[in-house]
Amino acid sequence: MPRSVDRPLPATAWAVLGILSFGEELTGYEVRQWAEHSLRFFYWSPAMSQIYSELKRLEQVGYASSRTITGDDTRTKRVYTITGPGRVALAEWVEGTPVEPPVLKHGAALRVWLGHLATPERLREIVAQHRDNAQRLCDEAEFSRRTAADVPGWAYPELVARWATRYYAAERDLAEQMLTDLDELASSGRAPGRDPSG
Amino acid sequence: MPRSVDRPLPATAWAVLGILSFGEELTGYEVRQWAEHSLRFFYWSPAMSQIYSELKRLEQVGYASSRTITGDDTRTKRVYTITGPGRVALAEWVEGTPVEPPVLKHGAALRVWLGHLATPERLREIVAQHRDNAQRLCDEAEFSRRTAADVPGWAYPELVARWATRYYAAERDLAEQMLTDLDELASSGRAPGRDPSG
Repeated sequence: MPRSVDRPLPATAWAVLGILSFGEELTGYEVRQWAEHSLRFFYWSPAMSQIYSELKRLEQVGYASSRTITGDDTRTKRVYTITGPGRVALAEWVEGTPVEPPVLKHGAALRVWLGHLATPERLREIVAQHRDNAQRLCDEAEFSRRTAADVPGWAYPELVARWATRYYAAERDLAEQMLTDLDELASSGRAPGRDPSG
Repeated sequence: MPRSVDRPLPATAWAVLGILSFGEELTGYEVRQWAEHSLRFFYWSPAMSQIYSELKRLEQVGYASSRTITGDDTRTKRVYTITGPGRVALAEWVEGTPVEPPVLKHGAALRVWLGHLATPERLREIVAQHRDNAQRLCDEAEFSRRTAADVPGWAYPELVARWATRYYAAERDLAEQMLTDLDELASSGRAPGRDPSG
């Protein structure tokens, strides 16, 4: 008997159940591959340990089930699938639960905010690195979009990957504008000086 | 004697210490007001309990100190200030520590990714609400920027607030583009249908 759901599941559990909702029977490792290919661009890049703890939780409440199969290499592996009640609960979560506000923890912006404690060269380096990372993520999201475009039933993942491609392109451009602003501030003489000695 | 720093402080501790690094002596409540006016746009909107636990941690390692003063209303209150070692440690963190990649948990994008489980009307509602929230945050970040522009020594907070204003304007525009994409998908007949019964 599945344990009753006595408190709301965290969004990370719904995200893992969401991966199973595309209909395939997946190992924990494959769930992680799906996450790396899609979820990480807009939500979460989970560790294997997090995937397994969410799958265990989903099984306990009856939203996922698992079985052991023998792979081509004769080794056994455990595969997970969404259950009927799991699909109903997930659809209710998407359709009826208030959407939590986006979480953004922007380490580069935090450093620039503390620019009075850093050298202008260090701030430039931080923002330039962020710009380059954003370009890389933009390329990776575009690759994810092209892959999704070939799969029937993945129209929504494709649409979100398109959004992610634009998001990281915007991040790249915002970083470029920030570099311009930093250069202007440095040459204006208005930049608060570094004085770590207090 | 301050306790030694036996393990790295989390970024949230540095963020609170960062608020004190602008040089004012602040109560916990005032630290929270600063966070609401700046940090929340790019990093963190901390609860009072989180502020107090970070301030306690910072005092324990000797990076902040506090004293009790009597306010205008004759009630006592505790005010916090950054110490010399705290300023040095924070500057070292900004200057020398690798920047952690941005964390983004985008609940609206997660729902759209699971669009095969929702009605088109619900997806529109979620994205339109996100667009309106982004516009509100854009306006609030611009207000924060204008306030910072009047304060000597806040050139970097002003610069980051300008970045945040552009960031939320981009979020708004990206949501608008997503609405267009959703409408096109709905009218194309390619949208995977909702089938919550499994």
